[in-house]
Amino acid sequence: MTSHTPDASRLYLGIDGGGSKCRALLTDATGRTLGCGISGPANPFQNLEQACDSITRASTEALAQAGLGGQALGGVIAGVGLAGVNIPRVYEQMSLWSNPFAALYLTTDIHIACLGAHGGEDGAVIVVGTGSVGYVCERGDSHSYGAHGFPFGDKASGAWLGLEGLKAALLCLDGLGPQTALLAATEAHLHARGLNLVAAMAGARSRDYGALAPVVLACAEAGDAVATAIMEEAAAYLDALAAKLFAHGAERFALLGGLGQRLVPWLSPESRAAVIAAQGQPDEGAVSYAMARHSAAVNRRVS
Amino acid sequence: MTSHTPDASRLYLGIDGGGSKCRALLTDATGRTLGCGISGPANPFQNLEQACDSITRASTEALAQAGLGGQALGGVIAGVGLAGVNIPRVYEQMSLWSNPFAALYLTTDIHIACLGAHGGEDGAVIVVGTGSVGYVCERGDSHSYGAHGFPFGDKASGAWLGLEGLKAALLCLDGLGPQTALLAATEAHLHARGLNLVAAMAGARSRDYGALAPVVLACAEAGDAVATAIMEEAAAYLDALAAKLFAHGAERFALLGGLGQRLVPWLSPESRAAVIAAQGQPDEGAVSYAMARHSAAVNRRVS
Repeated sequence: MTSHTPDASRLYLGIDGGGSKCRALLTDATGRTLGCGISGPANPFQNLEQACDSITRASTEALAQAGLGGQALGGVIAGVGLAGVNIPRVYEQMSLWSNPFAALYLTTDIHIACLGAHGGEDGAVIVVGTGSVGYVCERGDSHSYGAHGFPFGDKASGAWLGLEGLKAALLCLDGLGPQTALLAATEAHLHARGLNLVAAMAGARSRDYGALAPVVLACAEAGDAVATAIMEEAAAYLDALAAKLFAHGAERFALLGGLGQRLVPWLSPESRAAVIAAQGQPDEGAVSYAMARHSAAVNRRVS
Repeated sequence: MTSHTPDASRLYLGIDGGGSKCRALLTDATGRTLGCGISGPANPFQNLEQACDSITRASTEALAQAGLGGQALGGVIAGVGLAGVNIPRVYEQMSLWSNPFAALYLTTDIHIACLGAHGGEDGAVIVVGTGSVGYVCERGDSHSYGAHGFPFGDKASGAWLGLEGLKAALLCLDGLGPQTALLAATEAHLHARGLNLVAAMAGARSRDYGALAPVVLACAEAGDAVATAIMEEAAAYLDALAAKLFAHGAERFALLGGLGQRLVPWLSPESRAAVIAAQGQPDEGAVSYAMARHSAAVNRRVS
C-alpha cells in the first residue's frame, strides 16, 4: 500500500461513517481537497438504509462544494470506512448496496482511522473514546482487537470506566465495597444522592456512562485507591492491546479518541514510548484507501 | 409485627407487582383465600399509570373469583409490594395514587417477599434471579442491600453472571484474556461463532444476559478456571450480603429467585448453614403486611 498510481482523471471520495455522523472528503488524484460534506448517522449495523442514505448525502454535498452535480457520483471512486462492518454479516449486507459510485471500496472505520493517522501507510492505532479498539495493518495483513460494543466489550473505554466507577460507588453506598471518593464525586456529577443515583442512571446508554469517565480519572489522579485500581485495570488492558499490535510488527501506535491523551500517563513505560501523534484524519485515510484499492484494481486489469 | 388483630369484618388483598406481572390474593380476616387475580406489569418506576392499572385489574379479578363486583374494592384493605418503590421519588409518586381501596399500604416487593418467606414474621432474604438483592426486617427496622438494576447493580445476579461470562468469552476470542471453555459454550448457546457473538448479543437486555448464566454455572461446575473465578466473585458478594443481614440480627435467610438454589454450593459454610426454605409466596406476605399495618392503624385510632 506504500506506492500507488491513482487514476489521474478520477475524483476520489473518502467516507468516514459512524453512529453519529458521516463525513465525506472529495479530492483529485493528487490528493488536493475539492470539497467536503457531512450528514447523519452511517452505521449499517444500527440502520443499513440510513447508512446508505447518509453516505450519498454527504458525498453529494462534497461534490456540490466543488461545483459538481449529483450525477458526477457515477464517476467517483469512493473509499468507505464504516463502524459495524467488522461484523461479517453486516459487511456482506453493506456490500450488496447498489451504490451510486464508479467503484466503492468498503472497509472498517478503524482501518481508515489507522490509514489517516499514518498518512496512508501501514501502522497501528488504539482508539479510546466511548468505546475502545486496537488495530494494526502491516503488509496488507490487518488485525483488530477489542471493541465489540458496550457493556460486554470496549474494556478501558470511557463507558467502561464510567460503569466501573458507578458500580464501585454503589458498593460503597451499601457498605459492600471499600470506601471511595467515587461515591461523593459521582453524586456531585449527577446532582443525585444515595439511591437517587440509581434513578439518575437507569436506562443509561454507553455515552451516559462515558460521561462519568472524567469522574473516575479525577478521583484516580487525586489518589483514591478504588479509582486507581480501575485505571490500572484499564491500563493493563491497553498495554495488552499494545503488545498484540507489537506482535504483528508495529513499533509505534497512535492513541486516538477523546480519552486517549488522558490515559497515556497510566500506560507502561514500553507502551508510552511507542505512542506517536496522528498525521491525519479518518476521511483522509479513506481517500488513501480508495486510491490504493483502485490503483491495484486498474493494475490487475492492465497486467 | 408478630401479633395483630385484623379488622374481622374486612377483606384483605395482597398485591405482588413486578416488571412482568402483578398478582393479587384476596383473603378474609382469618387469612383464608377467597380468590386470586393476575395481570400485566406493575413496576411504577417503569410505568406509573400501567402499574396502577395492573393493580386494579388483578384486584378486580380476585374479587370476581369471590363473587364480588368491582365496587367491593372500596371496602378492601390492600397491602401492595412493588418493584421500583425502593427509589424515594417513585415511592412518593406511587403514594399519590387516588386508589380504589379502603386503605392501601405500600411497600417494596422485597419486603413482601421476606414477609411471605417467613410467614409474616421478621426475617431476612437474598433473592438471586435476573437481579439480586439482600433484605432484612427485624423489629420494624428494615435494610436493603444491592439491587439497583443492571448493569451497574445486581452483582451476582443471573444478568451479572451472564455478562461476566460473555466478557470473558470475548477476551478469550481476542487472545486478551485466559483460555476458557466459556467461549465455546457461549457460542453453542447462542448458535453464533466468533465475532457473530457480538451481533447475537447487541442490544441485549438484562434477561438476555440472565439467559447466559446457566452457561457460566455449567462451565464452573465442570471445573473451568475462568468460570469458577466468576462464580467465586459472585459467592463472595453474596456472603458479604449475608454478613450484612446477620449484622442486623438475622440468624437465617431464605434464598429466593431462579438461581438461588444453584448458588448454595458456592456459598461459604457460614452462609450455607443459615439458608432456610421459604414458607410462603410474596402475595401472602403482602396480605400479612396489609393486616399488620391496618391493625396498627385501627389500634392507634382506638387508643
